[in-house]
Amino acid sequence: MREMEKKILEEGRIMPGEIVLVDSFLNQQVDVQFLQKMADEWYAYFGDRKITKVMTLEASGIAIATIVAMRFGVPLLFAKKYESYNLTGDRHQSTVHSYTKGKTYAISISHRLLTSEDRVLIIDDFLAKGSALNGLIDLVKSAGATIAGIGVAVEKTFQSGGHELRERGYEIYSLAQVSGFDGDNHIFFEPEPII
Amino acid sequence: MREMEKKILEEGRIMPGEIVLVDSFLNQQVDVQFLQKMADEWYAYFGDRKITKVMTLEASGIAIATIVAMRFGVPLLFAKKYESYNLTGDRHQSTVHSYTKGKTYAISISHRLLTSEDRVLIIDDFLAKGSALNGLIDLVKSAGATIAGIGVAVEKTFQSGGHELRERGYEIYSLAQVSGFDGDNHIFFEPEPII
Repeated sequence: MREMEKKILEEGRIMPGEIVLVDSFLNQQVDVQFLQKMADEWYAYFGDRKITKVMTLEASGIAIATIVAMRFGVPLLFAKKYESYNLTGDRHQSTVHSYTKGKTYAISISHRLLTSEDRVLIIDDFLAKGSALNGLIDLVKSAGATIAGIGVAVEKTFQSGGHELRERGYEIYSLAQVSGFDGDNHIFFEPEPII
Repeated sequence: MREMEKKILEEGRIMPGEIVLVDSFLNQQVDVQFLQKMADEWYAYFGDRKITKVMTLEASGIAIATIVAMRFGVPLLFAKKYESYNLTGDRHQSTVHSYTKGKTYAISISHRLLTSEDRVLIIDDFLAKGSALNGLIDLVKSAGATIAGIGVAVEKTFQSGGHELRERGYEIYSLAQVSGFDGDNHIFFEPEPII
């Protein structure tokens, strides 16, 4: 069994709305030593991709992406969320829909900080419908930068986001892939990683 | 000159509203190696305080606090911001006013994750009027936990937050203390650290 799967079974809880609550080690409370193991696993997979920046979306991806940026020896970039577009024109902008909050946010990153020279590793905590990753991909593409890979902590493969992104050619390495639940709150994982 | 002051003079920019923009190394883009030096400085000061948790507020404090938690070898906790109070009753709650956004947020942390056994090091990126730190202090106190220290990256000593908190007996170690600006966008620092 993969380490992240074991940790989810030990500490995760299933909440209404098919939410896997991992607030004892990934959200709210963060087990920094476990994050270092996660970063090692992504480094083993993406370490030869000449990554220049690790990028995530505020807020819950930041802790994970910080440790990953340290492991790769490159800066971390985090896109900010806003209630509305900002009209200054010096920022790459896109949108992200939060299904848990029922809201659409504008997200952005400064032109100065992301350029066509960059090779970006995108990191996020969850992948379900893929809205956050699609927004981050938009920002990287509007900068003319290269997406060198995508790392996800927990993917729900019974939702469509990962499948659609892989169809479009993106390489996503998820540390756990939840394939479903049963009525007794058991969590099931993909038998083999889907990449 | 202290390292953080040097970095602010090299990379910081003054924006309208007496804002020191540090988005090339602390916000948006994060210089993770520099964060490790910051964590070392706080560890030199607070390392003997038997800290059990490092705590911050989402979003911009998270990257800094993650590296600090790693340096102290303890978990990171981050309080979440909400548009309104959540009525489940299993969370410590307080409020924070954002002067830059002109909004008041509810902030909270789960009862499970912060208890009277904890000795907390609070970390934040900025200290001006002190609203974020006051909200975090409220959460720690409502858990019956101990505030073992407060670490701030950039304090504006010409605003009242730091002074008021020190009057109330909190020990705040700031890595840079901005005492003011002049009309030519020069930044001035306190000649000696105020703790």
